[in-house]
Amino acid sequence: MKFGLFGGARTSVGEQPSDSQQHHEFIDYVVEAEELGFESVFLVEHHFTGFGQVSASLNLLSFLAAKTKRMRLGTAVMVLPWHNPALLAEQAATVDVLSGGRLDLGVGRGYRYNEFHGFCMDMDEAEERYQECLAFIRKAWTTEGRFSHTGKYWKYDNVVVEPEPLQRPHPPLWIGANSAASIEKTARDGMNLLIAQHGTPQAVGEKIAVYRAAVEKTGRTFDPFSAAVTRALHVCYTPEERDRQHALRIRFMQNVQHLSLPPSGPVVGNHFQGHGDEADMRAKTETDALIGTPEEIISRLKVYEAAGIRHMLLMDVGGSREALRIFGREVLPLFKEPSA
Amino acid sequence: MKFGLFGGARTSVGEQPSDSQQHHEFIDYVVEAEELGFESVFLVEHHFTGFGQVSASLNLLSFLAAKTKRMRLGTAVMVLPWHNPALLAEQAATVDVLSGGRLDLGVGRGYRYNEFHGFCMDMDEAEERYQECLAFIRKAWTTEGRFSHTGKYWKYDNVVVEPEPLQRPHPPLWIGANSAASIEKTARDGMNLLIAQHGTPQAVGEKIAVYRAAVEKTGRTFDPFSAAVTRALHVCYTPEERDRQHALRIRFMQNVQHLSLPPSGPVVGNHFQGHGDEADMRAKTETDALIGTPEEIISRLKVYEAAGIRHMLLMDVGGSREALRIFGREVLPLFKEPSA
Repeated sequence: MKFGLFGGARTSVGEQPSDSQQHHEFIDYVVEAEELGFESVFLVEHHFTGFGQVSASLNLLSFLAAKTKRMRLGTAVMVLPWHNPALLAEQAATVDVLSGGRLDLGVGRGYRYNEFHGFCMDMDEAEERYQECLAFIRKAWTTEGRFSHTGKYWKYDNVVVEPEPLQRPHPPLWIGANSAASIEKTARDGMNLLIAQHGTPQAVGEKIAVYRAAVEKTGRTFDPFSAAVTRALHVCYTPEERDRQHALRIRFMQNVQHLSLPPSGPVVGNHFQGHGDEADMRAKTETDALIGTPEEIISRLKVYEAAGIRHMLLMDVGGSREALRIFGREVLPLFKEPSA
Repeated sequence: MKFGLFGGARTSVGEQPSDSQQHHEFIDYVVEAEELGFESVFLVEHHFTGFGQVSASLNLLSFLAAKTKRMRLGTAVMVLPWHNPALLAEQAATVDVLSGGRLDLGVGRGYRYNEFHGFCMDMDEAEERYQECLAFIRKAWTTEGRFSHTGKYWKYDNVVVEPEPLQRPHPPLWIGANSAASIEKTARDGMNLLIAQHGTPQAVGEKIAVYRAAVEKTGRTFDPFSAAVTRALHVCYTPEERDRQHALRIRFMQNVQHLSLPPSGPVVGNHFQGHGDEADMRAKTETDALIGTPEEIISRLKVYEAAGIRHMLLMDVGGSREALRIFGREVLPLFKEPSA
């Protein structure tokens, strides 16, 4: 099994250290993760949270491209409706060129009310804007020479998007998908699969099986790295510390819920339907998050491995360097593939 | 006198080496320039040229932030009309944070017909869009907490732009200005001054004198670094090589002219009025560019120094590493300030 990081510049829940400190701490964290054997980092894109969260993900990845050597540099995800498609294609290709072809471009529609509200953009337009931007980026990366685009939201006349990405025909595109129908479409579209932070190992395994079957139906070989599952990681040793880590994880989920839902509550058609109340959240953190001693985490991971999961992104809300090291030294080596 | 670089990822006129090679060559070029004593690099932003020119300037600067230690990292310029103001403020602040406060943000309206045409944007809107974007960025960087913006082109509701830049209140803003009135306005607005690639040392010196007087009229102390002049640099030793370098420079100017002017010719109100015919261009390269032996370049620079110029950006169309080294070893040390 391969492991990566999921997240962004560190944010301490309830504390407000300065951004620059957070950014540089996060960079050291990623660089150390690479040394420990982590093989990817996927950065979120968020705006207007008020707690200094990473916003310009592709700029942070550009910096990380210079600081790391081998690890894949991903986004999970770039929210396409907010971006000028040509500028985004240029920025992403630049990261690919600068990193020697290490970009994994995760893309999505966005789900947080707070962000669409800030951009004064109707969430009902998200799907159309996402589709238009994605189609433009694919066209820009697969068209030889100049082309034009006339869409509902963007127009370009006789353009060539440069630089070309280094990976041909283009960096892998990743999207989050949940239902069997959308997972099958993801496979048919030649895109990699991001599976979100919630769901039992069995449920995740079923999704990967659907994706694998759909990929193979197209005649391609399934690459186990092409389906990544994100899980929260909290290393702890005592019952008190365990409760504290569950509480931290729940505070994080409450924060996301607060930023995501409009004042009127869950929105039909938005994939984010809320986490429910605190008891629901605790039930989720018990089944979904990796919270426990290294031994407990290892036995949890064996269940994921048996369910067919081969690429896991770990998200540590606290950003504990100690937890990273414990995982890197005591857990990760046990899951290294013989070929690696 | 302090020296910097002006340009972007290398483009060989008439040749098409691959982008990634060009980007990595350019990075090595900048890193070596820092070692040689160059104190700044200002990157252009251009799109749709078809010869692999740097487009995502702030991503390249993010990478350079990791590869360099002391040099100032600038843009000359970011073309504001093409950017989402909130995303641009976030990206620029991220570069400032990642570089430890080394960003110099040059901004402009754009002047190339080819680019506005590609973005399907009316050049008549450039000024209004520029003003709106600049006002937004200043507001984002100087407002404590959340704010809203309702402009002609962009709307934001209750946003906070993060991260905050490291330099307080914000990174220096630079703009290109030409007439005495616009130079005086630049000083009153608290912005630094970029002087373009054309004009005699005397003409440049007069502009700096106007700027200095206008800065001092506001009660601030004039910082000689805050007014930068860009000059073409071509080191050559024989008459034949000199002719070849003038021809190279002229081909570059013709290329810019081709990309800048609409099919109908120069546009009233656009600062780019064309370079004229080849004889006009040769006259300009003779007076304006630094083309010659190290001794000739030194005596030219003494004229600039006497005219009050203390910050010069050098642009080498060929991107010759040899010219960089000759300048860094034989010319630059002669102009080092005693305090440096």
